[in-house]
Amino acid sequence: MSSTQFSSQSRGQYDSKAYSAAGPKTPLVQTTIPRREPGDNDVQIEILFCGICHSDLHQVRNEWSAMPTVYPCVPGHEIIGRVTNIGSAVTKFRPGDLAAVGCLVDSDGNCPQCKAGLEQFCPHMTLTYNSPDVHLGGVTYGGYSDSIVVKEHFVLRVPSNLDLAGAAPLLCAGITTYSPMRHWGVTKGQKVGVVGLGGLGHMAVKFAHALEAHVVVFTTSLNKKEDAHRLGADEVIVSQNTEEMNKHVASFDFIIDTVSAEHDINALLQLLRPDGTLTLIGAPDKPHAVSAMGLLFNRRNLSGSLIGGIAETQEMLDFCSKHNITADVEVIPIQKVNEAYERLSRADVKYRFTIDMASLKAK
Amino acid sequence: MSSTQFSSQSRGQYDSKAYSAAGPKTPLVQTTIPRREPGDNDVQIEILFCGICHSDLHQVRNEWSAMPTVYPCVPGHEIIGRVTNIGSAVTKFRPGDLAAVGCLVDSDGNCPQCKAGLEQFCPHMTLTYNSPDVHLGGVTYGGYSDSIVVKEHFVLRVPSNLDLAGAAPLLCAGITTYSPMRHWGVTKGQKVGVVGLGGLGHMAVKFAHALEAHVVVFTTSLNKKEDAHRLGADEVIVSQNTEEMNKHVASFDFIIDTVSAEHDINALLQLLRPDGTLTLIGAPDKPHAVSAMGLLFNRRNLSGSLIGGIAETQEMLDFCSKHNITADVEVIPIQKVNEAYERLSRADVKYRFTIDMASLKAK
Repeated sequence: MSSTQFSSQSRGQYDSKAYSAAGPKTPLVQTTIPRREPGDNDVQIEILFCGICHSDLHQVRNEWSAMPTVYPCVPGHEIIGRVTNIGSAVTKFRPGDLAAVGCLVDSDGNCPQCKAGLEQFCPHMTLTYNSPDVHLGGVTYGGYSDSIVVKEHFVLRVPSNLDLAGAAPLLCAGITTYSPMRHWGVTKGQKVGVVGLGGLGHMAVKFAHALEAHVVVFTTSLNKKEDAHRLGADEVIVSQNTEEMNKHVASFDFIIDTVSAEHDINALLQLLRPDGTLTLIGAPDKPHAVSAMGLLFNRRNLSGSLIGGIAETQEMLDFCSKHNITADVEVIPIQKVNEAYERLSRADVKYRFTIDMASLKAK
Repeated sequence: MSSTQFSSQSRGQYDSKAYSAAGPKTPLVQTTIPRREPGDNDVQIEILFCGICHSDLHQVRNEWSAMPTVYPCVPGHEIIGRVTNIGSAVTKFRPGDLAAVGCLVDSDGNCPQCKAGLEQFCPHMTLTYNSPDVHLGGVTYGGYSDSIVVKEHFVLRVPSNLDLAGAAPLLCAGITTYSPMRHWGVTKGQKVGVVGLGGLGHMAVKFAHALEAHVVVFTTSLNKKEDAHRLGADEVIVSQNTEEMNKHVASFDFIIDTVSAEHDINALLQLLRPDGTLTLIGAPDKPHAVSAMGLLFNRRNLSGSLIGGIAETQEMLDFCSKHNITADVEVIPIQKVNEAYERLSRADVKYRFTIDMASLKAK
């Protein structure tokens, strides 16, 4: 798929420890995977922390018909580590530097999207795991591993003041929530809604608060109220409370909807002002039932957003540095990853798991 | 609803001939309605032509639960006429001038929408028919009548080179298709889709063509192909032809969807480029089933649009003058209005009916 001409395919490969799934119903177990030796433009990274994303769970369980899983599958695209080696053409990193990798490890670099810094929409992008690997064959392997080798353009700088375990989820949950707020221009004083207070939602609250918006969290249970306020919410609305919802009709500039379960999108759309936008970053299995009238009146917009480009991911990390933002994480050893998946599927985590990769070496 | 302080409520009223419906299942019949004598800011217009809009049919038949019909109902919001009298404060019109009135006859003038020229989203707007009438009580009466009195701000100038019968539908079908193309920035060389080739669709094709876009018409039947090309389409796609549709994936900058019948919106959304917009101007009874994934990938937008503001309506008329655009109309006497409704409900018109109001005087 990728048009990359890699100059050092003959440079060989080395073994890396990793956790992989052999099939959709088998647990993740320790294994050994090949990584390529760094080529001229590559950065080799010792992985220190890797966040667990809901996407990892979906991919391991082969739940996305549009992206069937190739096994063995090594998930993980919220990677924080330290540079151990660089190719001869690398200029932005030196051994010893902190570095991060998100959902993308390559793209064609030539299409209009790449030229616009929207590598996530490149028709030839290479995802960090489960994409064809032009270097070693098979598919790419993600961050549940002790090392990774990635083309420099797709490696991010990690500001030194960030907690590394909490910074890992920024690479997916962070950019996924930051990017739409930037794209649709969330600014000081705007009224911004965040639907759902999970891994994505808690990041959205932090970003909207840091952008000085008036932040309103929509949740299905009032027991998240205190936590929402702690994270930066100005108001909390129980979305099933019709009376409460109706008080906010046509008042929101922007709503970010993180929920992957079925829910009433029209009840949220009616809360948008003229020209307001509701952006989906969660994808329920079933389509949303969208009333056309709700969009016609007030010229409302229903949009979607997917991670972000590389330059914007760096901007997000720098924004996090400035505002001291990281994810609220529960750090686990990799030996507990299967248990963490079970808990994640029950939404039993506040708000994100991060694997301490030292646990992989120890074994 | 309106905050208008009308200075001349005591000035009285006069009788005007009109066609009205007494109930949702009764035909329109000739009647007499009151019109107010023009106040200081009012323009009195002798109606020459009035277009028949699908909205007229829905309102007369009480098919909109959100806007229940008050009977007797005099529909009509595509009004072209000649000024017969003006109030003392009127500056833009003189008796004898051509004038037009669209879907709106008042708004509060003070809200953010009014200040932004988006009177159509004013929470206190007064529709041309079936809105509370602050002057005479009851509801406003539309253009199936020999005269109307309207506040100057809501009266449009009619360029002298336009065919008057063909110009009438510009006041709703015209602005409804022109406004979203302007708002979402349709420009030369863009690939623009028009879904459905009816009253709205045929105007959308003319405007997109005049804006020098590459115009693609989506239709369910190939027998409209020749007409689509005559109106300005560069390509015609039969939307049920999956193979043909797939050739256009991720290639459209903008799609305007005029269809009020149920149809597959995801098949259209996938045709949008990154950051492309599909705008609904038709409103099916049932909600659209919208796949979130289709919006997430390529950051696509599903939007709605509703008529346009007053300044933009004038801009549209001036654009039509420059490009010599009017609707393709079948002119009928008002005595055939019930027959026209039957034909309209079967989509049996190319592409819009216009009532020649001379027929009302003759009787």
